[in-house]
Amino acid sequence: MLKVVAVDLGGTNLRAAYFPNDDPHPESQTKTPTHAQEGPDAVVAQIVRSIEKVAPDDRRHLRIGVGVPGPLDPVEGVVLDTPNLPGWLNLPLKRLLQERCRVPVVIGNDANVAALGEWRYGAGRGANDILYLTISTGIGGGVITGGRLLLGVKGLAGELGHMLVNPGGAVCGCGRRGHLEAEAAGPAIARKFRERLAAGAHSSLTDRADATQEITTADVGRAAKDGDALARSVIEEAAHIIGVQLASLVHAFNPQVIVVGGGVSALGPLLFAPMEQALRDNIMHPVYLNDLKIAPASLGDDAGLIGAMVLARET
Amino acid sequence: MLKVVAVDLGGTNLRAAYFPNDDPHPESQTKTPTHAQEGPDAVVAQIVRSIEKVAPDDRRHLRIGVGVPGPLDPVEGVVLDTPNLPGWLNLPLKRLLQERCRVPVVIGNDANVAALGEWRYGAGRGANDILYLTISTGIGGGVITGGRLLLGVKGLAGELGHMLVNPGGAVCGCGRRGHLEAEAAGPAIARKFRERLAAGAHSSLTDRADATQEITTADVGRAAKDGDALARSVIEEAAHIIGVQLASLVHAFNPQVIVVGGGVSALGPLLFAPMEQALRDNIMHPVYLNDLKIAPASLGDDAGLIGAMVLARET
Repeated sequence: MLKVVAVDLGGTNLRAAYFPNDDPHPESQTKTPTHAQEGPDAVVAQIVRSIEKVAPDDRRHLRIGVGVPGPLDPVEGVVLDTPNLPGWLNLPLKRLLQERCRVPVVIGNDANVAALGEWRYGAGRGANDILYLTISTGIGGGVITGGRLLLGVKGLAGELGHMLVNPGGAVCGCGRRGHLEAEAAGPAIARKFRERLAAGAHSSLTDRADATQEITTADVGRAAKDGDALARSVIEEAAHIIGVQLASLVHAFNPQVIVVGGGVSALGPLLFAPMEQALRDNIMHPVYLNDLKIAPASLGDDAGLIGAMVLARET
Repeated sequence: MLKVVAVDLGGTNLRAAYFPNDDPHPESQTKTPTHAQEGPDAVVAQIVRSIEKVAPDDRRHLRIGVGVPGPLDPVEGVVLDTPNLPGWLNLPLKRLLQERCRVPVVIGNDANVAALGEWRYGAGRGANDILYLTISTGIGGGVITGGRLLLGVKGLAGELGHMLVNPGGAVCGCGRRGHLEAEAAGPAIARKFRERLAAGAHSSLTDRADATQEITTADVGRAAKDGDALARSVIEEAAHIIGVQLASLVHAFNPQVIVVGGGVSALGPLLFAPMEQALRDNIMHPVYLNDLKIAPASLGDDAGLIGAMVLARET
């Protein structure tokens, strides 16, 4: 059986793990800071060190799977550029790692890779048509359709956070305005909360109004869980925006399961209830809702690592 | 080789044709009014008569492919309901036709079926990742991804006309508000033109302002081609709305070719130029535009019939 070293490269942390078979519990793993600001050469060297640390001595039947923040070209194995990793521009990551590690390497967009993990081992297990959305600092996506990862002609498909929802709205991570990510991800929730507070809205965090710049998405989430009406309404608004877009995506993809992960999904029913309501309210025909399951992601922080294992195994 | 009788069932006309092989020029064909108002039994009987008229005596290796306005379940072969065919509700069309014609039957959503036609014989030939949009009275869609028709779990995928573009906007054919179809298909163009005219805007059609209810999409199209500024601006507005949604769809699907058909696409550059501009202006990364081709559909009215042949042959 194929053995896999999986790598989950994030802007903050870099994880690597060795999976000797298809058991999703790795035999060994390592986690280090990415030190992204040191530039691509240093990060690639760090990836190689992490791989060496967990890889077995016998490298026959070994493959490496890597999840990387996109956009990237998984066919050519090139990271085009990525806001989270300064200086990465058209970096041939696949070739670089293959030259240094001397085993086949497969790279994939981190959200696509997490979708693979949730599909094979998480909340999407058993289904062939899955929509995966991860909501945290940004909004990423991955689609499984007919039992295959949706890639598109250059492997750039599944960027579901970049649907236009508010023309002329907030600036998105990609540079455009009003995308779903810019209007409903974690930073949008914190920003809207601070704006309302600054405009005089009452909240349990009003006492901190003198330091409104410091209020984070996590603060808003805690306040909402404690019953703060303003925090709840801001979260509901983001959930509504996401649910409306999910309706459009359901018409496009007709999924069996929608899996929602990422830090913001930890809000639980505060997010899911209004999101599901908006989805239902905007569906063109009830048949799309028959047997549709909307589930929180179940692999947590391991989705990327386990997904990179799936990527290497099934590509 | 498989022989196919293809049927294109529309709200107005019903066409059937016999394709003895994979040549897209049928050996025989027939076209009759659908008489949709007479209800499903009469229409089904008329479909059977049309099939009998073109089908060969030797029915070995014969299949029937039928394109029908959705939503429908192609797996079970059931038309759920369809605004264009009064009285059709959960009609088991596949079973009914199989019983009467005694050959295997495959049914598909008309826009999906047209996408298959354009893929194999039209403007999408040679590509594996295609977005097909048909803009006429409504807006329908079909997606080919990785060389397969995107179906989703129940075959309901590809309803690209039902993305929300204007919350609380015009009522859509599906009953919801503000969908792409409601804001940018032919009737929306005519409606917006009449509204502007009624509000006092000047146009070469101003003389007909006493009969503004009579101005059709075709009138607006002709006026635009003759240089009428109001007609052009209304068409540009619709094209902009469509182009913006195409950008979102390109992020989701990363197609190689976007094929645009339907009556409104006959406007040519008046539609395509502003549509492509809006698409480009809203793309998150230029890499999506590399080698992306945007092409008018090339099969015209035959897309449905030829697509139904492809459906029967490849399913």
